[in-house]
Amino acid sequence: MSNILGIDIGGTNICYGVVAEDGEFLYQNSIKTSTVASAEDLAAQIKKDLGKKHQVSGIGIGAPSANEISQSIEHAPNLEWGDIVPLKAIFEEEFDIDTYVVNDANAAAMGEKFYGEAQEMDNFVVITLGTGIGMGSYVNGNLIIGANGLAGELGHTVVRRNGRECNCGKFGCLETYIAKNGIVKTAKEKLEFSSGGSMLQSISPSNLSPAEIFKSARREDPVSLEVVDTVTRDLAFAISYLINILDPECVFLSGGISKNGNLLKRKTEKHLKSFVLPNLRDKASVKISSLNDKNSGILGAAAASRNKSGATA
Amino acid sequence: MSNILGIDIGGTNICYGVVAEDGEFLYQNSIKTSTVASAEDLAAQIKKDLGKKHQVSGIGIGAPSANEISQSIEHAPNLEWGDIVPLKAIFEEEFDIDTYVVNDANAAAMGEKFYGEAQEMDNFVVITLGTGIGMGSYVNGNLIIGANGLAGELGHTVVRRNGRECNCGKFGCLETYIAKNGIVKTAKEKLEFSSGGSMLQSISPSNLSPAEIFKSARREDPVSLEVVDTVTRDLAFAISYLINILDPECVFLSGGISKNGNLLKRKTEKHLKSFVLPNLRDKASVKISSLNDKNSGILGAAAASRNKSGATA
Repeated sequence: MSNILGIDIGGTNICYGVVAEDGEFLYQNSIKTSTVASAEDLAAQIKKDLGKKHQVSGIGIGAPSANEISQSIEHAPNLEWGDIVPLKAIFEEEFDIDTYVVNDANAAAMGEKFYGEAQEMDNFVVITLGTGIGMGSYVNGNLIIGANGLAGELGHTVVRRNGRECNCGKFGCLETYIAKNGIVKTAKEKLEFSSGGSMLQSISPSNLSPAEIFKSARREDPVSLEVVDTVTRDLAFAISYLINILDPECVFLSGGISKNGNLLKRKTEKHLKSFVLPNLRDKASVKISSLNDKNSGILGAAAASRNKSGATA
Repeated sequence: MSNILGIDIGGTNICYGVVAEDGEFLYQNSIKTSTVASAEDLAAQIKKDLGKKHQVSGIGIGAPSANEISQSIEHAPNLEWGDIVPLKAIFEEEFDIDTYVVNDANAAAMGEKFYGEAQEMDNFVVITLGTGIGMGSYVNGNLIIGANGLAGELGHTVVRRNGRECNCGKFGCLETYIAKNGIVKTAKEKLEFSSGGSMLQSISPSNLSPAEIFKSARREDPVSLEVVDTVTRDLAFAISYLINILDPECVFLSGGISKNGNLLKRKTEKHLKSFVLPNLRDKASVKISSLNDKNSGILGAAAASRNKSGATA
């Protein structure tokens, strides 16, 4: 089979590349999302950039708020291309090449299935931890899409009743605690009530980030350790539902925040013990995605294009 | 295709019947579970009862704590037939007929798929509400079994952190609040702190049951209404995870407690609004299983036998 154009649409950057069947990149580039006026503009810019250098036989696009049934982006909070963006139609019009649109977290799951550690697994989950929280999962060897193309809204499961207000209008959503802003908010709250000194106080509040907080926690800063403890307890609470309900072989953590590797994994596993049925406790492992260092978004989108029939089998 | 022997093993009764392909019962009988010494004894008793009256081409057994991968009952708290009971092997030895063992909640889901309202659905969940809480679900048209045959442990998802102690060793499991004993316990707690009179006070504590509590709630008894409100809020909390994660077309409520029909459904739907992502709120419906009045356990076990290849496709 020939090469695929994989596109990973994010709120900050849009990365794309030409991917060979074995997952090798033949070409790679990116565009700042803010410089793209519309999906039509994006298609035209990428087509112009590729020119005649690279022939591709398919296009796979991973995007936030993508509905795989309608093949459109629907109400994406971080994109200003309109409420409903019929991405597949727009790219097929520009390129005249078969295009498949996949939710970004499902793309991550497909990346894991076709190029990562899940190649032999029929039942696994990938959680993407970053500005938002996403989830893609395989059951019986097929991706869960849902009756309305909306499966995988782990970020909006409630982990604390009457908890923090979420953009979605509900209270206590996982995203408000373990996405980037949620972690920083918890750190600020804890700093306010902390009597002793904390390494975090040497960082200006506007520079406070999950990476800094995890770094300080690894250096035994008590406030940072508390933040990591709280964050991983909430994450474990949500993961326990996945394990109790789906009985997966593995839960992969992927995305920016998952780069805090070992500490994140160890603390999450510790808290899982309080929430997971004893029978299942040692059966599902939590792993940091080994694709974190590659561009797994592009790889996943390319895999989605190659295997789209498998996604809805 | 010919007739199937469906067996529904419960903690109190074991019901069985010969089911034709269209779901009609050709014969039905039951045995008190306490009078059965072992799975071998059960197989022998049923074989003797059927005698030569009914020829069957397959056997389907729905059982609590059944692992569909090992085809055994594993550590069932309400059965005293040993820790690991290789049910398929025992029945095939006695009958010399192909036998398939399915988790009782998965049997309920298969009953719904083959004889109930889910015949046209590819994505749905059945929750069984009774002495324990079970769950069976279809994704992409196939039953979720899990990597270890243990999917569907909804009863042991935590709905209240640091909540009631559960038999499984954890705290705050759904089962401790919405299974039969949990509902009665909540009523007793509320009665203790209630100043005014309650219809429930006219019932001796040992006769207090979910049916009585729901009956009083329908007659506007304030304490009973509070109990129903609490119970349905916890149930909705757990269901919201199913909807956010799986995006099913419908969540069916089945089993003894679900016979409290309309009130249970209405209050659960009301509470779901606080927990489900707005996008998904009007998409998944909650329904009381229309199979409640039939012997859905036997029907589901028979369906499991007929369609076992579909369960793990």
